[in-house]
Amino acid sequence: MSIGFFEGTHKCSITTTMGLGSHEGGCLSIKMNEYSFIFMVLLYYITTSYVLNSLLKEAEKINLRALSKERRREQLIEATIQCLSKKGLSSTTLADVAKEAGLSQGIVNLHFNSKDNLLADTLRFLTDEYDERFMKTFYGAPADPADQLLALMEMDLKPPICDRSKIAVWFAFFGETKAQPTYRKICASRDQKYAEILKSLVEKIVTDGKYIGINPGVISTTLSSLTDGMWLSCLISPKSFNRTESLLAIQSYLSSTFPNHYPR
Amino acid sequence: MSIGFFEGTHKCSITTTMGLGSHEGGCLSIKMNEYSFIFMVLLYYITTSYVLNSLLKEAEKINLRALSKERRREQLIEATIQCLSKKGLSSTTLADVAKEAGLSQGIVNLHFNSKDNLLADTLRFLTDEYDERFMKTFYGAPADPADQLLALMEMDLKPPICDRSKIAVWFAFFGETKAQPTYRKICASRDQKYAEILKSLVEKIVTDGKYIGINPGVISTTLSSLTDGMWLSCLISPKSFNRTESLLAIQSYLSSTFPNHYPR
Repeated sequence: MSIGFFEGTHKCSITTTMGLGSHEGGCLSIKMNEYSFIFMVLLYYITTSYVLNSLLKEAEKINLRALSKERRREQLIEATIQCLSKKGLSSTTLADVAKEAGLSQGIVNLHFNSKDNLLADTLRFLTDEYDERFMKTFYGAPADPADQLLALMEMDLKPPICDRSKIAVWFAFFGETKAQPTYRKICASRDQKYAEILKSLVEKIVTDGKYIGINPGVISTTLSSLTDGMWLSCLISPKSFNRTESLLAIQSYLSSTFPNHYPR
Repeated sequence: MSIGFFEGTHKCSITTTMGLGSHEGGCLSIKMNEYSFIFMVLLYYITTSYVLNSLLKEAEKINLRALSKERRREQLIEATIQCLSKKGLSSTTLADVAKEAGLSQGIVNLHFNSKDNLLADTLRFLTDEYDERFMKTFYGAPADPADQLLALMEMDLKPPICDRSKIAVWFAFFGETKAQPTYRKICASRDQKYAEILKSLVEKIVTDGKYIGINPGVISTTLSSLTDGMWLSCLISPKSFNRTESLLAIQSYLSSTFPNHYPR
C-alpha cells in the first residue's frame, strides 16, 4: 500500500495498489478526503490497540493460571508436610491434606491423582529445598575447603534444615524406602551428590595438609553418617538432643582428623 | 482317725472316731477285717493317683496352651517384620500379616485386637532382641572398656543386627515416632540405656588413658550417631554401603580420639 501526501493542501490522495488473486496484474485505486483518512487511521489504531490489549490480557491470564497452579501445588505440598509431621505417613490421607490446606479433596485429586503421587512430589520438594540450601551454603562460605566443609556440617544441624517436624517427614520417607523404590531412588541420588561434594572437599584438605593414611571416602561417609544419626536423636530424644553438643562432636571429630585445619 | 495294728496277728482293729455335728460328743466305731482294709487302702491310692494325674494333665494342658499362645504371638510378630520390610508400615494390613503367617485374620485379631497393638508389640520384640544381643556382646567381650566399646560398635554393623530388612523395620518405626508417642517412648528408652552404657565405657577409657579435654558425653553421642547414620546408608544405598569401610570409619575415629587404646 502506498500513501502519498501533497504538502500545503488539506487534500490528500491515497492510492492503494494490491494484487488480486482473481485478477492477475489488476489494481485498485481508492481516493478519500482528509476526514476519511483521519477516521481510517483512528479506526486502525483503535482496533489494533484493542486486539493487542486483549491478547496481552489473555497472556496475563494464562500466566496467572500457570502461576496459580504452581502455587496451589506448593500449598498442597506444604499441607502434606504438616500432616506427615503430625500424623505420620501411614495415617495421613488425602482428606487430611485437603483439610490442612483449607481446600476440597477434589482439588487435591486434580493436582496429584493419588496419595503416592502427592508423597513422591512432597519428597522431591524436600530434596529441592535441601539442595538449594546446601548449594547456597557451599557457595556462600569462604572459598576454602575446610571452611566449606564445616559450614555444610553446621547447616545440617541448624534450623531451618535441622527442624524436628521436617526431620519427622524425612524419616517417614526413609522408613518407606525399602518398600517404595521411587523414594529410595530420590533419597539415594541426593545422598550420592552430597557424598561426592563432601569427599572432594576432604580430598582437598588432605592434599593441602599433607595428611597421611587418611581415606577421604571414609571421612566423608563418617561425616554424613554423623549428621544423619544426629537427626535421628533430634527426632527420638528431642529433650536430650543438644544442638551445641552435636556441633561440638563434629568439630571434635574434624579436629582429631585434620588438626592443622581445625585446631582445638 | 486312729488306726491301731496288733503285731503278730492278721487281724487288725480300725477305730474311727469323728465328731458328728448332730450328735455332740458322739463317736462312731468301725471294725473291718484285713481284706477290707487292703481294699480301702488300694481304693484310697487309686482315687488319689487318678485325681493327681488328672490335675497334672490339666496343668500341662494349661502350660502348653500358654506356650502355644506365646509361640503364636511370636509367629505373628515375625510375619509382621517380614511384611513391614517388604511393604512398609503404611501399606501393611492385618490381612497381609495373617497371609504371611499362614493363619486366618481372626487369629491376628484374637492376639492383637488392632494394627496399633500388633505394631507396638513388634517394636517391643525388636528392642528386646536388640537388648539381648547388646548385653550378650557387652558381657561376652573381654572385661576391658576399650574392647567392650569396640565390640558393641562392631555388633551394630554386623549381621544379624545390621540386616537391611530389619533396619527397614526400625526406620519404619523411627518415621512414626513423632506421630506415635508410644513408639517414641520405646525407642527413646532403648537409646538412653545404651547411651549411658557407652558413656560409662568412654569415661573409663578417658580415666585410664588420662586423656585431656575429652567430653565422654560428646564421644558417646558421636559413636551412637555414627552407627545410626550407617544403618541409614545401608537402607538407602545398599550397593554403595560398605560394611568394612564403615567399621574402618569407627576404628579410625576411636584411634584418633584414644590413640593409646586403639593404636593405628
